[in-house]
Amino acid sequence: MFDSGVGGLTVLKAFRQAFPTADIHYVGDTLHMPYGDKSPENIQDFSRKIARYLRNSGAELIVIACNSASSWAFEAVCQEADDIPVLDVVRPVVHYLAQQSDVNWVGLVGTRATVQSGIYPRLLKAIAPHIHIETLATPLLAPLVEEGIQLHDLNRILVRHYLQQMPLDQAQALVLACTHYPVLHDVFQELLGPQIQVLNPGQVLANQCKAQGMDFAGTGNLFCEVTEYTPAFEKTAERLLGYPISLQTVDLRS
Amino acid sequence: MFDSGVGGLTVLKAFRQAFPTADIHYVGDTLHMPYGDKSPENIQDFSRKIARYLRNSGAELIVIACNSASSWAFEAVCQEADDIPVLDVVRPVVHYLAQQSDVNWVGLVGTRATVQSGIYPRLLKAIAPHIHIETLATPLLAPLVEEGIQLHDLNRILVRHYLQQMPLDQAQALVLACTHYPVLHDVFQELLGPQIQVLNPGQVLANQCKAQGMDFAGTGNLFCEVTEYTPAFEKTAERLLGYPISLQTVDLRS
Repeated sequence: MFDSGVGGLTVLKAFRQAFPTADIHYVGDTLHMPYGDKSPENIQDFSRKIARYLRNSGAELIVIACNSASSWAFEAVCQEADDIPVLDVVRPVVHYLAQQSDVNWVGLVGTRATVQSGIYPRLLKAIAPHIHIETLATPLLAPLVEEGIQLHDLNRILVRHYLQQMPLDQAQALVLACTHYPVLHDVFQELLGPQIQVLNPGQVLANQCKAQGMDFAGTGNLFCEVTEYTPAFEKTAERLLGYPISLQTVDLRS
Repeated sequence: MFDSGVGGLTVLKAFRQAFPTADIHYVGDTLHMPYGDKSPENIQDFSRKIARYLRNSGAELIVIACNSASSWAFEAVCQEADDIPVLDVVRPVVHYLAQQSDVNWVGLVGTRATVQSGIYPRLLKAIAPHIHIETLATPLLAPLVEEGIQLHDLNRILVRHYLQQMPLDQAQALVLACTHYPVLHDVFQELLGPQIQVLNPGQVLANQCKAQGMDFAGTGNLFCEVTEYTPAFEKTAERLLGYPISLQTVDLRS
């Protein structure tokens, strides 16, 4: 499983809750984080190198736990993964939405890279053309979550600022299309009201894997690596996961 | 002149106002921004490559327009610069403070890298040991400025949150030790009151160069390069400078 940084840990958390015996090798590409403002070429380059490394490390499944990489580098990762299956955090959400009979209007917030990729509208158009989608880049939310400042007012002002820029009167769902955002789930839900479902892609992915009968026979081991060690990562990781993790550093630049 | 991204443009702005005829070659290392959360080794590595590039491009002076790089990579840049003079944004502020007879208590806000480097306390202790300094890492301010969200409440809540964590009762000055922060100068000044001087290191640097009689005989030309092109950079740059700039991309990784 990989992400540009700590955000993917919300996917890791959902995945481990669904599959407590899965052994997980997590790579956070902190040297290049955040991916959300990088070019498609670089996101693909970074993702390829990590996928190759994970495959060579013996991974039996690769999970792209990052919306920016899912948006731009899914095919690149599949190529590198060769015969190993690849899951991401975009396609499961699109399939989930397509299956909801009462959903025809969806909002989406994400990084610049994810929104500019146009991947959600494109995939939805292909399998659920009756669903209208409005997207908005909300680039300050990821750093806000990473800092973990516990000021409800601050979170609320910023989330409201972004939501006010989207027409959501007719929406039935809002996709939190950045792995950091589920930390702000309750703020979104409070501001949107109960009639709009707020979707956490990591949770949607874990639910679908479970529903498809996937299983992982392991010991629930977690091996966590970053491409650039920072104490801040460890601190944020513990806050997001609810337990401490030990970090190794890995250089994937060559 | 270089920075990890757009922040250094506040230094560029002050410098160009002081020296309108200087020809400036500006490099924003957007591929690796922000430096504030990177390791000392990487900040030195990135800075060396940029310094080498600027020297080879014919620079007659190198200005490190980034506090994180000034804190960790001044010596590395001087080595690469060889016989070309190097200026930074840390040392001029330390000298300015040392010269103020009414200053004995200073606060400082900056990135994690700058604060963890301990450079300000170390340099102050050497030349002005009577000055007490309190430092605080305020890592959310740089992305806030980059996004340019014009919500006074948001800026105010966040700046107040940070200031409340510093004992500033006896302070005569607060150093904005990140090149992004001068954009929030008025918010800081409003919250701190008129008795505390809020210092913009880019301005302090430009003033000292002027006072030392420096001069640059050129045509006021600005050549601006980034290591990763993003439309967001152009937009933020225009907001910070007050005029549009044209950007080239350069690859300095090898």
